[in-house]
Amino acid sequence: MAAGFALHPQLAADTVPVADFALSTVLLMDEPAWPWLVLVPRRESLREIIDLAAPERALLIEEIARASTVLQSLFAPDKLNVGALGNMVPQLHVHVIARNIGDPAWPSPVWGAKARERYQPADLQDLVRRLRGAFA
Amino acid sequence: MAAGFALHPQLAADTVPVADFALSTVLLMDEPAWPWLVLVPRRESLREIIDLAAPERALLIEEIARASTVLQSLFAPDKLNVGALGNMVPQLHVHVIARNIGDPAWPSPVWGAKARERYQPADLQDLVRRLRGAFA
Repeated sequence: MAAGFALHPQLAADTVPVADFALSTVLLMDEPAWPWLVLVPRRESLREIIDLAAPERALLIEEIARASTVLQSLFAPDKLNVGALGNMVPQLHVHVIARNIGDPAWPSPVWGAKARERYQPADLQDLVRRLRGAFA
Repeated sequence: MAAGFALHPQLAADTVPVADFALSTVLLMDEPAWPWLVLVPRRESLREIIDLAAPERALLIEEIARASTVLQSLFAPDKLNVGALGNMVPQLHVHVIARNIGDPAWPSPVWGAKARERYQPADLQDLVRRLRGAFA
């Protein structure tokens, strides 16, 4: 954990940690409509991708690729959505989301598309275990 | 232009080219609500970021950073939004969008947020000229 880094409380409340990459902590969004990961670079006071130095940006895109590959291998989605928005939660974070034709927001973006739900505890536990295994 | 690469007709219809980077063509979205660039890697049959090889991914994130820096310098937005969705247009493309508090979609994503408009011809010409200058 880099000095001064703290996960934004909203991200902490909405997610469960599943992996620590070299730069980013990988979180699972607790929303059963989509397999949805969030990467948060462990650096203080970041808002934009361009707040990272170039070597860290190179790391970030490889970590996005690694998260994407795991979602593809576990869920075989029709499409991946990758986005760094931060309009609501200012801490730099990158969404990597498995999308399927006919999913609850398709073909729109997932953000704000539906009322928030949460996994059943046993389903969440099982999914976290599978993701941690895939990232190990 | 890489062999076999052709810009998706929808992207061609919605945008004006403003720069050619090493990997990507940079397009301006013809939508006056937001300063909005789209990067399209000039490689055939790409759908996902992970369809690029790792060295091309490293190029892509630097090109995203360069587009972001130009939007920041010209428009000083409150936030940048970066996204690779592709739910509607399957060809790999990355949106880099300047957002402001109170803009027509804020704080939601821009995609699908409002009916499409187009720049006035003189405004479009002026903006394309400024962007081409900034990317030169």
